[in-house]
Amino acid sequence: MNTVNQLRAMTVGGLITILFATGALADDHSGCVPSKWGPDDQIGAANLVTPERTLQALKLVKQGVSHPLGIVVDPNTPTFPPRSMSLQVVTPGQHNGRSLAGDYGWNLTYNDDLAQLWFGIGSQLDGFGHLGEGGMYYNCNDARDFVNFSGLNKLGTHNVPPIVARGVVIDMARHKGVDALAGGQAISSADIRAAAAAQGIEFREGDVILIHTGWTDAKLESAPDEWLSTEPGLTNEAAAWLGDQNPIAVGADTWGVEAVPPAEGDKVFYGHVELLGKRGVYILETMNTGRLAREGVREFLFVLGQARIRGTVQMIVNPVAMW
Amino acid sequence: MNTVNQLRAMTVGGLITILFATGALADDHSGCVPSKWGPDDQIGAANLVTPERTLQALKLVKQGVSHPLGIVVDPNTPTFPPRSMSLQVVTPGQHNGRSLAGDYGWNLTYNDDLAQLWFGIGSQLDGFGHLGEGGMYYNCNDARDFVNFSGLNKLGTHNVPPIVARGVVIDMARHKGVDALAGGQAISSADIRAAAAAQGIEFREGDVILIHTGWTDAKLESAPDEWLSTEPGLTNEAAAWLGDQNPIAVGADTWGVEAVPPAEGDKVFYGHVELLGKRGVYILETMNTGRLAREGVREFLFVLGQARIRGTVQMIVNPVAMW
Amino acid sequence: MNTVNQLRAMTVGGLITILFATGALADDHSGCVPSKWGPDDQIGAANLVTPERTLQALKLVKQGVSHPLGIVVDPNTPTFPPRSMSLQVVTPGQHNGRSLAGDYGWNLTYNDDLAQLWFGIGSQLDGFGHLGEGGMYYNCNDARDFVNFSGLNKLGTHNVPPIVARGVVIDMARHKGVDALAGGQAISSADIRAAAAAQGIEFREGDVILIHTGWTDAKLESAPDEWLSTEPGLTNEAAAWLGDQNPIAVGADTWGVEAVPPAEGDKVFYGHVELLGKRGVYILETMNTGRLAREGVREFLFVLGQARIRGTVQMIVNPVAMW
Amino acid sequence: MNTVNQLRAMTVGGLITILFATGALADDHSGCVPSKWGPDDQIGAANLVTPERTLQALKLVKQGVSHPLGIVVDPNTPTFPPRSMSLQVVTPGQHNGRSLAGDYGWNLTYNDDLAQLWFGIGSQLDGFGHLGEGGMYYNCNDARDFVNFSGLNKLGTHNVPPIVARGVVIDMARHKGVDALAGGQAISSADIRAAAAAQGIEFREGDVILIHTGWTDAKLESAPDEWLSTEPGLTNEAAAWLGDQNPIAVGADTWGVEAVPPAEGDKVFYGHVELLGKRGVYILETMNTGRLAREGVREFLFVLGQARIRGTVQMIVNPVAMW
Repeated sequence: MNTVNQLRAMTVGGLITILFATGALADDHSGCVPSKWGPDDQIGAANLVTPERTLQALKLVKQGVSHPLGIVVDPNTPTFPPRSMSLQVVTPGQHNGRSLAGDYGWNLTYNDDLAQLWFGIGSQLDGFGHLGEGGMYYNCNDARDFVNFSGLNKLGTHNVPPIVARGVVIDMARHKGVDALAGGQAISSADIRAAAAAQGIEFREGDVILIHTGWTDAKLESAPDEWLSTEPGLTNEAAAWLGDQNPIAVGADTWGVEAVPPAEGDKVFYGHVELLGKRGVYILETMNTGRLAREGVREFLFVLGQARIRGTVQMIVNPVAMW
Repeated sequence: MNTVNQLRAMTVGGLITILFATGALADDHSGCVPSKWGPDDQIGAANLVTPERTLQALKLVKQGVSHPLGIVVDPNTPTFPPRSMSLQVVTPGQHNGRSLAGDYGWNLTYNDDLAQLWFGIGSQLDGFGHLGEGGMYYNCNDARDFVNFSGLNKLGTHNVPPIVARGVVIDMARHKGVDALAGGQAISSADIRAAAAAQGIEFREGDVILIHTGWTDAKLESAPDEWLSTEPGLTNEAAAWLGDQNPIAVGADTWGVEAVPPAEGDKVFYGHVELLGKRGVYILETMNTGRLAREGVREFLFVLGQARIRGTVQMIVNPVAMW
Repeated sequence: MNTVNQLRAMTVGGLITILFATGALADDHSGCVPSKWGPDDQIGAANLVTPERTLQALKLVKQGVSHPLGIVVDPNTPTFPPRSMSLQVVTPGQHNGRSLAGDYGWNLTYNDDLAQLWFGIGSQLDGFGHLGEGGMYYNCNDARDFVNFSGLNKLGTHNVPPIVARGVVIDMARHKGVDALAGGQAISSADIRAAAAAQGIEFREGDVILIHTGWTDAKLESAPDEWLSTEPGLTNEAAAWLGDQNPIAVGADTWGVEAVPPAEGDKVFYGHVELLGKRGVYILETMNTGRLAREGVREFLFVLGQARIRGTVQMIVNPVAMW
Repeated sequence: MNTVNQLRAMTVGGLITILFATGALADDHSGCVPSKWGPDDQIGAANLVTPERTLQALKLVKQGVSHPLGIVVDPNTPTFPPRSMSLQVVTPGQHNGRSLAGDYGWNLTYNDDLAQLWFGIGSQLDGFGHLGEGGMYYNCNDARDFVNFSGLNKLGTHNVPPIVARGVVIDMARHKGVDALAGGQAISSADIRAAAAAQGIEFREGDVILIHTGWTDAKLESAPDEWLSTEPGLTNEAAAWLGDQNPIAVGADTWGVEAVPPAEGDKVFYGHVELLGKRGVYILETMNTGRLAREGVREFLFVLGQARIRGTVQMIVNPVAMW
């Protein structure tokens, strides 16, 4: 195909169509892992949300308690650079004391809000378009094929159906006998298995597995810079092992779920590839698990309906835990 | 108090403190309605979320079906002016073909997303700081006391606890024998009572009541300008009557829940005051109720965990319906 | 006019037209000052840019030196709350190592930049829509008539023609024998007259008059919080007196031109009304006058072509001084 | 260097430092062109602004006329995707009828403006960080070394000193005997030389050379989609030839200066590399040259002081032409 001749024959309108339709250059993706849910699948382990599992998970609610797993975020929430947030409460038509009575026929007043923000702030759902290896993402999706500057063409978080699941929380802080793990403290699969055994938790396919480290309760308010500069979390091996338990999502009360700095021999953030990329398992960051740990809640009903903004990589969320 | 002398004695830092702490000028608020949940209450009917009601509502799930009540929104979603949305998928550090391998030690690639948007787009939760009468909002909160340009000091939607409730959907389209009500078609309390009776629905304290008009399914895609320029919906009287049933929230599959243009003698959008302002009942707009209507679902479990962004007036939401 | 009936008969499209066309409620504006340039005038003293004055001003350039009067602004520049700035350099279509060669036919790479910012940051031109008294602005323009949330209908800075003028700089720091005036230090018209006389400066109609206080050179980098929390500057009387010299603009090397806190008996920022509102004289803030002071430049050619963004209240500018 | 070990030993703070300090991977840049102004030069042909040339250029002003070369831009201005603009006029502290009198001691009212915009909209200055070939930009600057997501570390437009120069305008429309050239119509160096000769224009080192095609006057308002989808403009050869005349900047009354679609055998937009990348010559897009063409102005004084926002790739500008 002679692109130059093509370009000569087309308008910028055409150029733009080409540009934003994304290209399709050949590449070697021999190493990518096809999804077990088929070549067209975009939602990965969310396929595990089934009526049967939903009905089972509902039975976990004994007391009728509900709890927000999302923290409150604002412009001061520490963010992975260069993410940021700004918010404005505005009053269109009510400038300089102007009344809306003339427009609406009564003394209506109102506030609206707009924001400039990144969706990877505070409690967040990582979609499958967030992190890849060599430009290759979940289900052998090449970034060159699905990433569009104005919104992903595939793998957007708006595709994720409501995640209704059995939630389990591993209280790793309790297991280690501390209020909070230390920054950089690595959590291995052996740690997880041991803690789960000690706390009477078994893993089942379709779970949402949360790790309570105590990190956010200990540091977010009192030492926000430290909170973001390091974190306890999964080793690469632990991420893969958790993914192999076939959960829908893996999360923690830390901003990145994985240990930073990484354990000896580990690749920083590579657990994201193990979960998102290779296994289609979602990641839930900065989950507000403190109350569950304090109250000894090990199993709960997990319900997440994230705002459905088309083509988003991530989303600020607030899953509801019920027990 | 001599403000001018005060100002002479202070810095702009002080000025700003005064300015954004909001002022407190005397006014006549004799007409405002105190909350039945006490003078400090900020969450209104969300107080009706109790363990007992939660346990009851969970019993409504028979089949294990879950369904997103939020629609997918994007920059083309029609919005009440001057609201808008813009989204960018970006790749920090990966400009012009730059690899992150040198930074991370492996061939990590990633996408992030930022947006400039209003929170009153698509499926949304109206908080109590959204609409008032004469500057007076829920629980006799004066805008001059709680509105801060960078986020509400009170009544922000981040305060709303998870709303777990019995949901009911009144299929008004079916009741009227149409696929969709007409733009401006008014729904009275008599209509609601008649439809509820015909469809075997009773209202209970603590419900989330949704009205299916068919409007969004009929118009949003095929006639987006018309969708926004008018809508079927509640009369002022119907809004008050619904509020008197003591629900947690009232919603519809329309962008404003109320009839636009309003019925003869009605004030446009005044139902917002009846619900939000006078009764502390939330409003849910553009709820995706079509599937429930088609499948004859009348009762369901409603679970909403909205993203908790501090001081927000509204929030884009995606409540989960389960039956 | 029966607004309620009107509303009943119209769509939201109509509502919006009314709302954003701004209303026109009666008010008492007996105190406002009509412009000497006629009732339709929007540009005030910019009318004083004439071929004759331009040709005269050009003669002030003796050495051929040109100098930017705008400072460099970035997200760290202190701003009057709640103003802020954020910038992103992005590479559309080049995500995750994707090449544009397939789209463009050659190995084109590019960067673009977007920003979320307020136009009242750093070196700025205050337009006539910025500050008023009781909702009344330049030339008896009522905010209710010209302010539109998505851009001013009148008085936008995009209307301001190129300002080509004789510039004069009063070195008030030198006159007071200091490197920089103190925060809150008031400058009276007597001070200005005395300094002008000592420095051999006379004022002429159509000048751009800048006051060098030394404040920004002394404080912006070394004490940014202090820089913004206070400033030396004009008294209300001095602002009026300067306006009466019929300049096109009055500026200073401070963020607000006027003394903060204000002098005994003064109203804070009321000089803005004296200049913008009553006399149609522009205000130039945070002018980079240090070099002119150091080199003893008293007169110069001033040329300002501000970015013409429709309906803006203010604009970040960088006027060129030549001598 | 063992990056993995490094990462293990550092915090995310450190990671971020590495990430945003940009990396420095080896590459083959044998083809890049060093600047004649030395290896550290960032401003290219702006070095040609000298007192001598400035004094000469001032002599071109005979009538005292000044004219804005920038057009008015707003959210409806067609933009190269995915660029966009949104503007809000806001009234902090004045919500719902709240008065600022309590804060300021008098009845102050004010408007402010914020925007979400790209700097490559309407009349714009292309900086040297905008467009490159294979990641290589002006003066052998590798994108991996100078591009930072939050602002360029080098080549930002804030570095560009005031451009004061002799401006010349080639009226290519007149030369071709039309009101406006056609979309895609190519302009060769032979065309330019012929038109310059016919119109009595010679080129000198340090000029700002503008080409009037009539395109924007003919199409921007009446056919905005067409305006953006194609344009008359320079061939690659003409861009190189113009650059060889040693101007400071080359511009046109089109959105991209170059022909789109490109001429047979040309690379689309490659003239940007010829000018920006190889020769350090600035590009000025969408210059408002209509009046100059109509009035037969061939030479003029050009003065540009662009808003100095640190690290920007481009900037919306409004150069002043005087004659």
